[in-house]
Amino acid sequence: MEFDYSPKVKEMQARLLAFMDEHIRPNENVFHEEVAANRAKGNAWVPTKIIEELKPKARAAGLWNLFLPRSPRAPEGLSNLEYAPLCEIMGRVPWAPEVFNCSAPDTGNMETIERYGSEANKDEWLEPLLKGDIRSAFLMTEPAVASSDATNIECSMRREGDEYVINGRKWWSSGAGDPRCAVYIVMGKTDPEAPRHSQQSMILVPANAPGVKVIRPLTVFGWDDAPHGHMEVELKDVRVPAGNLLMGEGKGFAIAQGRLGPGRIHHCMRSIGAAERALELMCQRLNNRTAFGRRISEQGVWRERIAEARCMIEQARLLTLKAAYMMDTVGNKVAQAEIAMIKIVAPNIACQIVDWAIQAHGGGGVSDDFPLAYAYAHQRTLRLADGPDEVHRNALAKLELAKHMVGAKEVEMPITRGS
Amino acid sequence: MEFDYSPKVKEMQARLLAFMDEHIRPNENVFHEEVAANRAKGNAWVPTKIIEELKPKARAAGLWNLFLPRSPRAPEGLSNLEYAPLCEIMGRVPWAPEVFNCSAPDTGNMETIERYGSEANKDEWLEPLLKGDIRSAFLMTEPAVASSDATNIECSMRREGDEYVINGRKWWSSGAGDPRCAVYIVMGKTDPEAPRHSQQSMILVPANAPGVKVIRPLTVFGWDDAPHGHMEVELKDVRVPAGNLLMGEGKGFAIAQGRLGPGRIHHCMRSIGAAERALELMCQRLNNRTAFGRRISEQGVWRERIAEARCMIEQARLLTLKAAYMMDTVGNKVAQAEIAMIKIVAPNIACQIVDWAIQAHGGGGVSDDFPLAYAYAHQRTLRLADGPDEVHRNALAKLELAKHMVGAKEVEMPITRGS
Amino acid sequence: MEFDYSPKVKEMQARLLAFMDEHIRPNENVFHEEVAANRAKGNAWVPTKIIEELKPKARAAGLWNLFLPRSPRAPEGLSNLEYAPLCEIMGRVPWAPEVFNCSAPDTGNMETIERYGSEANKDEWLEPLLKGDIRSAFLMTEPAVASSDATNIECSMRREGDEYVINGRKWWSSGAGDPRCAVYIVMGKTDPEAPRHSQQSMILVPANAPGVKVIRPLTVFGWDDAPHGHMEVELKDVRVPAGNLLMGEGKGFAIAQGRLGPGRIHHCMRSIGAAERALELMCQRLNNRTAFGRRISEQGVWRERIAEARCMIEQARLLTLKAAYMMDTVGNKVAQAEIAMIKIVAPNIACQIVDWAIQAHGGGGVSDDFPLAYAYAHQRTLRLADGPDEVHRNALAKLELAKHMVGAKEVEMPITRGS
Amino acid sequence: MEFDYSPKVKEMQARLLAFMDEHIRPNENVFHEEVAANRAKGNAWVPTKIIEELKPKARAAGLWNLFLPRSPRAPEGLSNLEYAPLCEIMGRVPWAPEVFNCSAPDTGNMETIERYGSEANKDEWLEPLLKGDIRSAFLMTEPAVASSDATNIECSMRREGDEYVINGRKWWSSGAGDPRCAVYIVMGKTDPEAPRHSQQSMILVPANAPGVKVIRPLTVFGWDDAPHGHMEVELKDVRVPAGNLLMGEGKGFAIAQGRLGPGRIHHCMRSIGAAERALELMCQRLNNRTAFGRRISEQGVWRERIAEARCMIEQARLLTLKAAYMMDTVGNKVAQAEIAMIKIVAPNIACQIVDWAIQAHGGGGVSDDFPLAYAYAHQRTLRLADGPDEVHRNALAKLELAKHMVGAKEVEMPITRGS
Repeated sequence: MEFDYSPKVKEMQARLLAFMDEHIRPNENVFHEEVAANRAKGNAWVPTKIIEELKPKARAAGLWNLFLPRSPRAPEGLSNLEYAPLCEIMGRVPWAPEVFNCSAPDTGNMETIERYGSEANKDEWLEPLLKGDIRSAFLMTEPAVASSDATNIECSMRREGDEYVINGRKWWSSGAGDPRCAVYIVMGKTDPEAPRHSQQSMILVPANAPGVKVIRPLTVFGWDDAPHGHMEVELKDVRVPAGNLLMGEGKGFAIAQGRLGPGRIHHCMRSIGAAERALELMCQRLNNRTAFGRRISEQGVWRERIAEARCMIEQARLLTLKAAYMMDTVGNKVAQAEIAMIKIVAPNIACQIVDWAIQAHGGGGVSDDFPLAYAYAHQRTLRLADGPDEVHRNALAKLELAKHMVGAKEVEMPITRGS
Repeated sequence: MEFDYSPKVKEMQARLLAFMDEHIRPNENVFHEEVAANRAKGNAWVPTKIIEELKPKARAAGLWNLFLPRSPRAPEGLSNLEYAPLCEIMGRVPWAPEVFNCSAPDTGNMETIERYGSEANKDEWLEPLLKGDIRSAFLMTEPAVASSDATNIECSMRREGDEYVINGRKWWSSGAGDPRCAVYIVMGKTDPEAPRHSQQSMILVPANAPGVKVIRPLTVFGWDDAPHGHMEVELKDVRVPAGNLLMGEGKGFAIAQGRLGPGRIHHCMRSIGAAERALELMCQRLNNRTAFGRRISEQGVWRERIAEARCMIEQARLLTLKAAYMMDTVGNKVAQAEIAMIKIVAPNIACQIVDWAIQAHGGGGVSDDFPLAYAYAHQRTLRLADGPDEVHRNALAKLELAKHMVGAKEVEMPITRGS
Repeated sequence: MEFDYSPKVKEMQARLLAFMDEHIRPNENVFHEEVAANRAKGNAWVPTKIIEELKPKARAAGLWNLFLPRSPRAPEGLSNLEYAPLCEIMGRVPWAPEVFNCSAPDTGNMETIERYGSEANKDEWLEPLLKGDIRSAFLMTEPAVASSDATNIECSMRREGDEYVINGRKWWSSGAGDPRCAVYIVMGKTDPEAPRHSQQSMILVPANAPGVKVIRPLTVFGWDDAPHGHMEVELKDVRVPAGNLLMGEGKGFAIAQGRLGPGRIHHCMRSIGAAERALELMCQRLNNRTAFGRRISEQGVWRERIAEARCMIEQARLLTLKAAYMMDTVGNKVAQAEIAMIKIVAPNIACQIVDWAIQAHGGGGVSDDFPLAYAYAHQRTLRLADGPDEVHRNALAKLELAKHMVGAKEVEMPITRGS
Repeated sequence: MEFDYSPKVKEMQARLLAFMDEHIRPNENVFHEEVAANRAKGNAWVPTKIIEELKPKARAAGLWNLFLPRSPRAPEGLSNLEYAPLCEIMGRVPWAPEVFNCSAPDTGNMETIERYGSEANKDEWLEPLLKGDIRSAFLMTEPAVASSDATNIECSMRREGDEYVINGRKWWSSGAGDPRCAVYIVMGKTDPEAPRHSQQSMILVPANAPGVKVIRPLTVFGWDDAPHGHMEVELKDVRVPAGNLLMGEGKGFAIAQGRLGPGRIHHCMRSIGAAERALELMCQRLNNRTAFGRRISEQGVWRERIAEARCMIEQARLLTLKAAYMMDTVGNKVAQAEIAMIKIVAPNIACQIVDWAIQAHGGGGVSDDFPLAYAYAHQRTLRLADGPDEVHRNALAKLELAKHMVGAKEVEMPITRGS
């Protein structure tokens, strides 16, 4: 038991922090202004120049594809435990991860293709993703059903000769708004009659395949997150080669289970980064404003919240790091309880801390003058994405109860929208 | 002690509910689509046709200016206790109150002019407001200071001959985005050297006075609330006749205290209406979705939340009605503790219930497909508007502690942005 | 809708408060010292002299059997709405209600016999109870099963000729420790094969019937509540005349439903009284202690809690009064949702407020130097007695969900240990 | 960063768990029955035979004085990080730590004497304490003042020749009820005129010194914790040799700061042990009881709580271990924020989890039939002992705010009753 970051991690943290200070912070509003300008010109759904300009700099600084786990195509990859604290730093600014080619859902999609795709799949889609030339989306959740129960999914994948014919309607397909988004990983049912967890399969669908139609962007508390976006997508008689199927028919559920572990670590560490930033902003604001003759930071009610926020963050970070450590050492399967825990804890504490920070900022807090209202909306969404809190709590409780039951069987963990 | 609504109130409730069913609900999205269309055409800051079309119908149905307290110019006015349950019904749809000429901040502004304005002020501004011909804004909060402490306010009002010269910067001036917004009530300091609560005054400022500049709209969790809007407004050497000063120099604080009572009842009852609607939507959704083999409404975790929501709503409504009753019978001053209580309770329970409803809707909950995310943003803002929770809790606690102290002095209640 | 107490109630409140000031408060510790002295002498299970001395004074002051609803034997009885505020006052001191012959479970038992007993039953048991000559207990909950589900109850009542033979084991039989406790109302099953809600019956069992054995007192957080007590009672081949059966075979569930309404109002109003007292003690303590150079009552964290406590109490009281009003006007059945709500709300807010008061008192708060730790234990128990929170929330949620379902059927409300 | 226990710790855990299974669990009620029997015989304030019988067995098993930090007199001592997980195991049964000579306040007192006492002090008091021959108490808190602010302390220590003359009244002197309790460490003021943190000193006072009078035991939620006890103690003109003063005049505050770190780790890990046990009992109970046709453990509301409990425990344990690690590696001073955090977090989560477990047990939960009600009382007290939550949150917030202030000065951490 030892609680220090390794020298390697500390060095990378320092390098990443320096990059954030030099290139991200000073450009934080540049991004928003560019999107606003694009919107005013009639189309917000175009990639921003600022991110494209910063990407080569990140690559030059050795801060590219940091998320990559050690693997044949990435021998220099980091462990989950090593990557987690870097991910936290990127999470302080919502658009920063893309600069390092470390943004969701591309990271999860790249891992999925790397693990479960054929060599041909990798050549076609993984390589350009690793280079940052294209983007991707993960099509899981459906508007018509409670997708927290994966067996509810209705999208059909019917084999016809050398092809699969796909029909379905998906939403919350994050990233599908970006014109560079070239490929989707789609979850659907190849055999609705198979046993509960063998009905689903995952398949690669080119975004420009005939029958694919991006219907509309969804909003998150008033923001449309252009140019990334969260799209509703229709798949109507879409035909893709059978070779696009990942791993085999009926493996969709298993892939989802394997895929989601690292993605959850990433989301959680970014949530912690967002929470840290909110706490910082809150402290600064309270130190700098005066009411009723005193600094607001001298008021006990704010002291309580600051202390609670610090306790929450420290605990959530340690738990996330432990989950990462377990994934590295005993695997995602054994770490399932810990992964469920961080999935529950991190966005919840981030929501609470950001909410306090909003309150500390008065009217400014709910506006775009501070990054807080947006951070709240984002963290709030994470309590639903990849399975709502309730589903994860239920699964975690089953694991706990099973310790006290004779003949307990394996517990199914929830999956949903991709990370 | 008796807990039934009077026959008069029940009749008006029925009439109002029928109007909501016939005219508001079917047009709920019409409003949003019209604003979106205006925005797409380049200007969202124009009044909507739908509201203008519905106004004469509301007037014809005897549902106009219901907020009006009994007064010389409104002998048919309602008591606070009578109006409250009607206000709740209107609060179920955010844009509905304007249809009945019962929307904030116009209602509070009309009351202020009626109580504290000269007859000339009333002829000039109150009459067209009562007819719904113009709209108004209340300019209180300032971006540079913690406005929860009214003595922090920096806007200056300097007497020069028969005029006042006003300089200041205000924000969260709600309604100032509307081109029909013709008049502002501005809070500022006529004498920064006077005793703490005699420094401030309120004055009527025509929106088209030279030196008035609407700088920009503020957003609330990504929404700009066009065409109503929450604006930042600059006042630079704005000159208005001395007769525009309400009540007299140094009376600003006293007016604010008197003004805010009814406005708080209104806000709170609308919050309760919003909470009721969220609970309804939550129940319907949970009844209609299935996961893991059962209706979601059969899951205990949702049952707990539904029950808690019902307990919260019933209690908050009773407390708000009691505050209204006290204002009617013993006056705003004696009712100050009850008014503080509802100001704290109503938006907080509404936030919690709406949040649960969002969670029950999954991804849909944070989008504009349901009115929930917007409702959350709106209710969250009400925890800051008219003084943040913390300031009201502090004032309420002082009242409570004073009961147990010898020689306790009067407690100052918070004011801030107008209702 | 009107929120003032009637003149009659105000007069009775004044009379009761005067009695509390003159006779209860000055003797508050006398009671505890007497019980402690009895315990030291070897038997704490004897009635206290202090209560017996005060009873005639209460009777003389017209403060006797106030709980009695208007009925043939009590034409002067109070309505639930009238009694509730008096009950609150008595609730400020745990042992006070008995002085007025208004203590649980006797009040509920008297009501039950009055409503469902034969004239012979009333002559035998109701009359001495109304005079305060004997006491009673309600034997419902069983140690071996989850009694929150009344169909789990295992106590059997077998008809044999003119008698019933009763076998079972009960616990939390409150009051059965008192040597004056002469009669039990026992819930059991006359027909385990009958439909779910027609299996149970209630029967009167003399405490001295052969086969009745008081096994032991249970403790509540370290207190045994002598001489009242919460006993475990064994019933072994206990024979009672068939005429002791209340209302008829299979009516036990129905009686329980009818019985529990008023008892819940009583418990809730006493909880509110306890919460008020805790808030008072908290304010006094915080006003009188100094830390870090200021009165502790000036610290914001305590101000927040005081304000929250006041908001909670006001709301809970209004809700309880509304439930009482509904019971008086539309009956217990129609008021079932409101009764469930107060059952959930009142002990929960009392627990929270008492807990804050404990915290405000430092180490003293958990000791017997203040009435707070005991009040906490008592209120905490009320979250379980008469059905745990979870069961009531579930029932309340079903009522709410049913509003949004087609063809919804009646919802069964929980019963458990008597009030 | 590495999250596994060392092989040495794992081996000791296994040994300790085996001892708990073999010797503690089977005797859990034996202890309570022995105390009850003593009480019935007229004196509960005598050491129990069961603990005395188990002590030699613990010593033989190499499970004696485990708390001892590495030091000249204990080269085989454990680090805080090593001891913490052992302390957690002992914490599952309230009276277990004494069996291993690892109970508060003796552990903290031994450390204090070891660090700050003279060799003579050590020979006289430390040696018999290490052998378990005598016990000790820590006299800090006073009934008359808010002791959370150490400068409020009124106990005076006046130098007269070679002696100090001590006058004061202390309470919550835990352990002083035990007849073997032979020595007190007393906190008092040697110079009330000195700077704020140099007024206090600590001195060793033999329990049998003339003028020492144990006034009475205090209760904790109805329990008196005999034979350990929490006593009120009067010190009247008590004279002790000047050599009994620890470290020097004015060093009391500094000693307290240094003393409290390890003690807090111990308390927190025992709290976590208590929380783990409560969760276990809750799961078992819910698995084994049926209501409304299903195991109660299948109800969603309980699943939510079980999951939350697991998340809380894991996080609190990691945070406590991190604090222990920091104390071992960078010292108590640098670890002050982490120590404050665990002091806040651990008893709070334990209270919440134990409360849920009580609720899961129905009426049984509040009684002595399960160890839950007592566990609640004990954990609740820990939110006050060694400084109330509010004082620690305030101190922690100051540390956080100081990061965002220029020229911030050192933050004073709270001390109070000893650990």
